[in-house]
Amino acid sequence: MSAPVYRDADAPVADRVRDLLGRMTLAEKVGQVNQRLYGWDAYERMAAGEFRLTEAFRAEVAAYDGMGALYGFQRADPWSGVTFADGIAAADAAGVADAVQRHVVEGTRLGIPVLMVEEVPHGHQALDGTVLPVNLAVGASWDPGLYEAAAAAAAAELRSRGGHLALVSALDLVRDPRWGRAEECFGEDPYLAARFTEALVRGMRSEGVGVVLKHFAGQGATVGGRNSAATELGVRELHEIHLAAAIAGVRAGAAGVMAAYNEFDGLPCAANPYLLTELLRERWEFDGIVMADGCALDRLTRLAGDPVAAGAMALPAGTDLSLWDGAFPRLGEAVERGLVAEAALDAAVARVLTLKFRLGLFENPYVDEREPRPDARELSERLARASVTLVGHDTRTLPLGPDVRRIAVIGPNADSVPQQIGDYTAPQRPGTGVTVLDGIRAAAGPEREVTYARGCELVGGDLSGQAHAVVTAAGADVAVLVLGGSSAREADTRFEANGAAVVTSGNPAGMTCGEGVDLADLALPAGQAALFDAVAATGVPVVVVLVQGRPHALPERFDRAAGVLCAWYPGPWGGRAVADVLFGAVAPSGRLPVSVPRSAAQLPVFYNGKDHGYRGYVDQPATARHAFGHGLSYGTVRYGAPRLSRSTVSAADPALTCTVAVEHTGGAAVRETVQLYVRRRSGGSSWPRVRELRGFAQVDLGPGERREVVFEVGAETLASVGRDLELVVEPGELVLETGPASDRTRGAELTVVRGIS
Amino acid sequence: MSAPVYRDADAPVADRVRDLLGRMTLAEKVGQVNQRLYGWDAYERMAAGEFRLTEAFRAEVAAYDGMGALYGFQRADPWSGVTFADGIAAADAAGVADAVQRHVVEGTRLGIPVLMVEEVPHGHQALDGTVLPVNLAVGASWDPGLYEAAAAAAAAELRSRGGHLALVSALDLVRDPRWGRAEECFGEDPYLAARFTEALVRGMRSEGVGVVLKHFAGQGATVGGRNSAATELGVRELHEIHLAAAIAGVRAGAAGVMAAYNEFDGLPCAANPYLLTELLRERWEFDGIVMADGCALDRLTRLAGDPVAAGAMALPAGTDLSLWDGAFPRLGEAVERGLVAEAALDAAVARVLTLKFRLGLFENPYVDEREPRPDARELSERLARASVTLVGHDTRTLPLGPDVRRIAVIGPNADSVPQQIGDYTAPQRPGTGVTVLDGIRAAAGPEREVTYARGCELVGGDLSGQAHAVVTAAGADVAVLVLGGSSAREADTRFEANGAAVVTSGNPAGMTCGEGVDLADLALPAGQAALFDAVAATGVPVVVVLVQGRPHALPERFDRAAGVLCAWYPGPWGGRAVADVLFGAVAPSGRLPVSVPRSAAQLPVFYNGKDHGYRGYVDQPATARHAFGHGLSYGTVRYGAPRLSRSTVSAADPALTCTVAVEHTGGAAVRETVQLYVRRRSGGSSWPRVRELRGFAQVDLGPGERREVVFEVGAETLASVGRDLELVVEPGELVLETGPASDRTRGAELTVVRGIS
Repeated sequence: MSAPVYRDADAPVADRVRDLLGRMTLAEKVGQVNQRLYGWDAYERMAAGEFRLTEAFRAEVAAYDGMGALYGFQRADPWSGVTFADGIAAADAAGVADAVQRHVVEGTRLGIPVLMVEEVPHGHQALDGTVLPVNLAVGASWDPGLYEAAAAAAAAELRSRGGHLALVSALDLVRDPRWGRAEECFGEDPYLAARFTEALVRGMRSEGVGVVLKHFAGQGATVGGRNSAATELGVRELHEIHLAAAIAGVRAGAAGVMAAYNEFDGLPCAANPYLLTELLRERWEFDGIVMADGCALDRLTRLAGDPVAAGAMALPAGTDLSLWDGAFPRLGEAVERGLVAEAALDAAVARVLTLKFRLGLFENPYVDEREPRPDARELSERLARASVTLVGHDTRTLPLGPDVRRIAVIGPNADSVPQQIGDYTAPQRPGTGVTVLDGIRAAAGPEREVTYARGCELVGGDLSGQAHAVVTAAGADVAVLVLGGSSAREADTRFEANGAAVVTSGNPAGMTCGEGVDLADLALPAGQAALFDAVAATGVPVVVVLVQGRPHALPERFDRAAGVLCAWYPGPWGGRAVADVLFGAVAPSGRLPVSVPRSAAQLPVFYNGKDHGYRGYVDQPATARHAFGHGLSYGTVRYGAPRLSRSTVSAADPALTCTVAVEHTGGAAVRETVQLYVRRRSGGSSWPRVRELRGFAQVDLGPGERREVVFEVGAETLASVGRDLELVVEPGELVLETGPASDRTRGAELTVVRGIS
Repeated sequence: MSAPVYRDADAPVADRVRDLLGRMTLAEKVGQVNQRLYGWDAYERMAAGEFRLTEAFRAEVAAYDGMGALYGFQRADPWSGVTFADGIAAADAAGVADAVQRHVVEGTRLGIPVLMVEEVPHGHQALDGTVLPVNLAVGASWDPGLYEAAAAAAAAELRSRGGHLALVSALDLVRDPRWGRAEECFGEDPYLAARFTEALVRGMRSEGVGVVLKHFAGQGATVGGRNSAATELGVRELHEIHLAAAIAGVRAGAAGVMAAYNEFDGLPCAANPYLLTELLRERWEFDGIVMADGCALDRLTRLAGDPVAAGAMALPAGTDLSLWDGAFPRLGEAVERGLVAEAALDAAVARVLTLKFRLGLFENPYVDEREPRPDARELSERLARASVTLVGHDTRTLPLGPDVRRIAVIGPNADSVPQQIGDYTAPQRPGTGVTVLDGIRAAAGPEREVTYARGCELVGGDLSGQAHAVVTAAGADVAVLVLGGSSAREADTRFEANGAAVVTSGNPAGMTCGEGVDLADLALPAGQAALFDAVAATGVPVVVVLVQGRPHALPERFDRAAGVLCAWYPGPWGGRAVADVLFGAVAPSGRLPVSVPRSAAQLPVFYNGKDHGYRGYVDQPATARHAFGHGLSYGTVRYGAPRLSRSTVSAADPALTCTVAVEHTGGAAVRETVQLYVRRRSGGSSWPRVRELRGFAQVDLGPGERREVVFEVGAETLASVGRDLELVVEPGELVLETGPASDRTRGAELTVVRGIS
C-alpha cells in the first residue's frame, strides 16, 4: 500500500489537503481550528535546561487527537506569568519545541504537525529575543527597506527557536492617539502603513516565517480611542483609510490576518462576513487563514446566546482558527446540532492545513538549528537611529558641539530600559540596553561632565524631585530633559541576584500606554510639565527628548525649548540612538508618522481628513501642533516645485513622472524624506480629503548637494475608492504635491480624463 | 372654456399637479425648485409702515415667470443685516407678505403662489416673534405635550405674518457636545428626539404650517463636533441612532426635510441617493419635499466639477428645492446638456407643487389676519420652568427659604437677555425679557436684599472683577453664580433711543456656542472657574446656575456647590423660571437630555454606546459626570422594581405591560420623570448597546403619595435594527429597566422567542 497523498511532498498542496481532510474525523477537524492552550502551559521547567511536557498539554492533544496551533510557547512577560525564572532561554527553546512537536506528530493518528504561533510585534517576544523599536518608531523611520531587514532578523530568531507563525501588529492606524496601542501602529496613514506591512511580510517570508497581520479591520478607529470598543466607521471610510495595509500585506504573501476585537457595522470582526469573506476571500482572493483574537469568539456569546452558537456564527463568517476561547472547541456540537454546516468547518480546516503544508511542516516539523542572524541587534539600533524625529529646533544648540562641557540629563524616562521598549516586549535581563543617560555618558566621553537627576515621577504632580533637577541643570551648558510615557508593565520588576525577575503584574501606576492603557488627556503629566518650566527657568538651554508610545499633546511651552526630539520607544539600545542624534553623529532623519495634537480636546487631528475647509474651533485650531511628515534636520533643504512629465493623462493610462529638485542650502548633511501627496480638486466618487500620501523617497544630501527625485506616478498613485468601493483612477482635477511634510507642499496640476479602459 | 384642472379646488391634488406640470415650460419648472433670493431683499422700507418691492425681487420672479419659495422674508438678525431699524414688525408683516404674493400670483403666467419659508427654530425668528427656550432646553423638559402647544403657538405667529413653511432643527442629536449647534438638538437620544419631533410636527400642522425638519441625516455625528464637516458614520450606526426622529417626523406628517451639509458614505446629504431616495422616498414612502441647506448644492461643485453638474448630481439623488445657491437655477442648462433627465426635474417640481396645493396656497394665497395666539409667551415661560435641571444639590440650601435674607447674584450670565436666548433668535427689543437677576429680584420681594456683581467676563481669564464679586458674596446668605456660555451674536448690540439696534456682525469675543462656533475644550473658561473658587472660598453657600447651549464639562469643584442647575438657554423670560425653581415656587423637574462630560478628553460620553464593558481610561473614567436622564428634585422618591405582565413574549406578539411603583418619601412635592430603558442580554443582529430609552412618563407626587406607572410595551418598544436594517423585534434575552435616570435603573428580564409573524 502506497503512502497517502497527503504524505507526498511532491503532490500539489490542494491535493494533499483534500486527501487529508477526507481522512479526518469531526473531532480531528475541530482540533485543527483551535489553539486553546497557552504555549507556556505545555511544559514545565524541572531544573536548569530540563523541561517536561505537562499533563494539560497531553490531554489537549488527546482530546482532538491533534492540535491545530499552540500560542505563546516561547513567551515571557508579566501577563503569561512566565519570567526569567522559568521561561525558556534561547538555548533550550529548540529542544522543547521539538519535544512538543514530536508528541503531536508521533502521538496522533494522522500525525499532523502543530503550528507554533508567537507574538513578534517588534522582535520575538521571548526570553533573549532581540527587541526592535515599536512600530510607531519604525513608522517614523520612513525606511521600509531597513525594516524589512529587521523583520527578517526577527523571523530568523523565531525560526531558530521553533516558531512558525509570527503575530505582528501592522494593520491598525493611529486615528485616535488616546488608544494605548498607538505604539503598535506604523502611524496614521494608510500608504505609509502599507509600505511597512509589505516590508514586514517580505522580510519574514525570506526566513520561512508566516506572518499573521493584526488586526483586521479598523481597530484604530474605535470610539474614543477605547481599546476593543466599537467603531462607528462607515464602509467607505473603511475602504479609503483602513484597508490599504491589509491589501498590501495580502499581496505580499501574508499567511493570515487576525480578526480584530472591534465590531464593524455592528458585528465583531471575527463574526463579520463582509470583512472576512466578501472582502478578504472573494474580492481579494486571499487563501490564507483568519485567526480570531484572544477569546474573541467567546465574546460573541453576547450576540449568539451560547458558546456553541457563537462558534457557529464565527465559522461561516470566515474565522478559521480561534485563540484560547471555549467556542471553537465545541464546533463539533455546533455541527451536530445543525447550527453550522460541516462544509464550513472543512473550509476552515483546509486553510489551516494548507498553511501547514506551505510552511513545510509535514516534511520538516522539527527545528532547523540555525544560528540566529548576528545582525539583529545592529538592525534594532539602526532602526532606532532612523526613527528619532526632531520636531523643534532653535538651530543654536543642536547638535551638541565641543563647547558643551557640562550636560545635565534629567527626567523620568532618562534612565530606564523598561520604559523605552514598549508593550509586548519580554522583560530585559539586567544590564541589557542603553538608556538615554547611558548613551549620553558614552558619547560625551571622559572630557565632559554628565550629571543626572530624575526630576519627577512619570505620572502625577509631585514636585519633590524638582529642586534637585534645577540644581543639576543650573550649572550645565545644556539640559536634556527626557520625558514622555511608559508601557512598562514590569515597571516594578526587581531582578534577583540570579537574574530572575520578580514581576508585579497588572497596571503599575507609572504605565500610561500599551494594550488596555488608553489615555484620555494627552498632555504630559503635571509633574513633567512643571519640571520643564523649572529647568527652563534656569536659563540653561533645554532639549526635550520624548520617549513615548503615542504622540502626546505638546504644549506651547515647548516653543521655548532648544530642541524637541521624539524618540518614541526606541528599543533597549535606543539611548545610543538618541545620543548619536544629539551629538550630530547621525543626522536626525525621522519624520512624524502621526500628527502631534495640541490637546485631546481637538481630536481627531489626522492630516488626511475630509476637506471641508474647517476654520477651527472657537477656542483652538483644529490643525495639528506638528503635522504628519514633519521632521527637522541639522541642515536646510530647498524644494523646487514639482514638474510633471504630462499635465493631462487618461484614466486608463495614467503613467507619468513627477520630478522635484531638492538642494542642500546650509548646515550639516541631511537625510531628507521627500514626500509625494495627491490632492483632488474635483471629480471622484466621494468627498475629497485634504491630501493623501502616495509616495516618498529618502535622499542623502551633503552640503551644497542638489538632487532630482523622480516619482513614477501610475494607477496606484492616482487611484481612489470608486462608487462600488473598488480602487480606480477617476477622472477629474488633481494636484500632485511634493514637499518635506504634509503641511509644506508645492503642487502641480494634473487633469485625468476619461480614457478607454 | 372651463378652468384648468389645477385651479379646481375639488380635484385630487395628484390630478392638479399633473395638469399644472403639463402646462409648464422648462424655465417655469426650474423656477419652482429654487429659493435663491433672500426674503429680506424682496422689499425695502420706505418709511415707518411703508414698504415697496425691490427690483431684485421683480427680476427674480421674471427670470422664471414664477418663484418656488422665498426664504427669510420676516427674518431679522445680524446675519441678514436686517434689524429693528428696517425689519418688518408684526404689524406690517401681513401686508408686505400679501404684496409679495400678489406680485407672484397676479404677475406670472400660471399664477403659482410662492412658498414663504421662515426659520422657526425656537419660535419664529422675526421681529417681535415670541422666543421659546432652545431645543436642548425643550429636551430637558421631557414634556412633548407642552412643546406641542408651544410649537402650535409659534406656528400661529408665523401664519399671522404670512409664513407657510417653518424650518426647524429637530433631527440632529448631540453626539459630540463640542458642536456649536448642540443647542438646536433635543438631546443625545433618538427616542427622546423622536417624541419631540412628533410633537413639533403635530403642533405646527394644527395651525396649518408645514414643517421642514432639519437636518437629514447624521449631522450630530460630524468628526470632532465640527460644523458641517464629514461624518464617518456607518450605515448601521446611522439606523440605530440617527434616523428615529426623522421617521417619527415623517409619520407625523412633516412637509419636508432639509438635507444636511455633512456627507454620509462620502456623499453630502443633498447628493446622497441612499438617504434621500432609497430611505426617505422608497422605504419610508415619504412624499414631502427635500430642501437643500444654504448653498449646499454649490459646494457639490467640488465633486461634480461645475455648478451645472452639481445641480444634476443633487436632483436625481432626491433634492427638490435649493436654498440660495447657483446650481439649481441652472438646471435648465443641465437638462439641455443631457446631464439630468427632465423627468427628474418634473418629480421635484411635482413635490413642490403638491406641498403648495396641500397647504391651500392656490385657494388662499393671502394672509388670514388672525391674531397670534395669546398664550405664546406663557408657553415659552412654562417650557423654561419645565427645563431647569437640578444636577447637584446638597439638600440644605435649596429651595431658598424665608431665612435667606441677602442674596448675591453674580456672574457673566446673570443679567443678559441676549445671552439666555441662544442662536437663531431675532434680537430682542430693549426691555424684553427677564434675566436671572431680574427674576431673583422679583421673587425675593422688597423684604430681601439682592446684590449683583458681574464677577468676570464670559470668556478669558481676567480676574479684575473678582474682588467686587467676593465682596458682594461675603455678606450674603447665599450666592447665586450664573455661569455658562453664550450664543449671542448681538452681544455688542447697542440699542438706540428709537429702539433701533446697531448690530456688529461676526463672531463677538464672548460667543462660545451657536452655528459655526464649536468649542474644543468643554471646560468653563478660566475666569468663570476662578470666580467660583473665589466666591466659594467666602464660605457662603454657592448655587451655580448654568445658562448654556451645550453641556459644559462640569468640574469636580462643583461638588462643593450647594446646588447646580442647568437652565440651558431658557429664552427671554427664563430668569423668572430660574427664580421660580430657586425659591421652590416650582418643583425642579428638568432631566438631562444629554450626558454631562467630565472633560473633552473623554468624549464621546453618550449613555447609549455599544456595551463593551470598557473599564475607562487610565487617567479618567469614560463615564459621564452626570448621566443622561439625571435630574434632582426637592423631594425624594423611591422606585420599586419593574414588574412585567409576561416574562416571555413572542416576537410576533410582544405586547405586555411594565409597571413600576414610585413613592414620595420626603421633602417637597415633585414632578418625576419615570424612564423606561431596554437592554439586550443576547440575540439581535448587532452588538448591543448599554441601554436604550424606550419610554418615559411624568407623574406629580405630593408628600407621601404613591403611584403605579404602567408602560404599554409593544413592538416599537422592543424593536431593534435587524440585519437588513429594518426595525424588527428580534428574539433573545432582554431586560426592561425603569428608574429616575439612565444610571439608576432596576431591571426585569424578558425573553423574546421567535413567533409566527
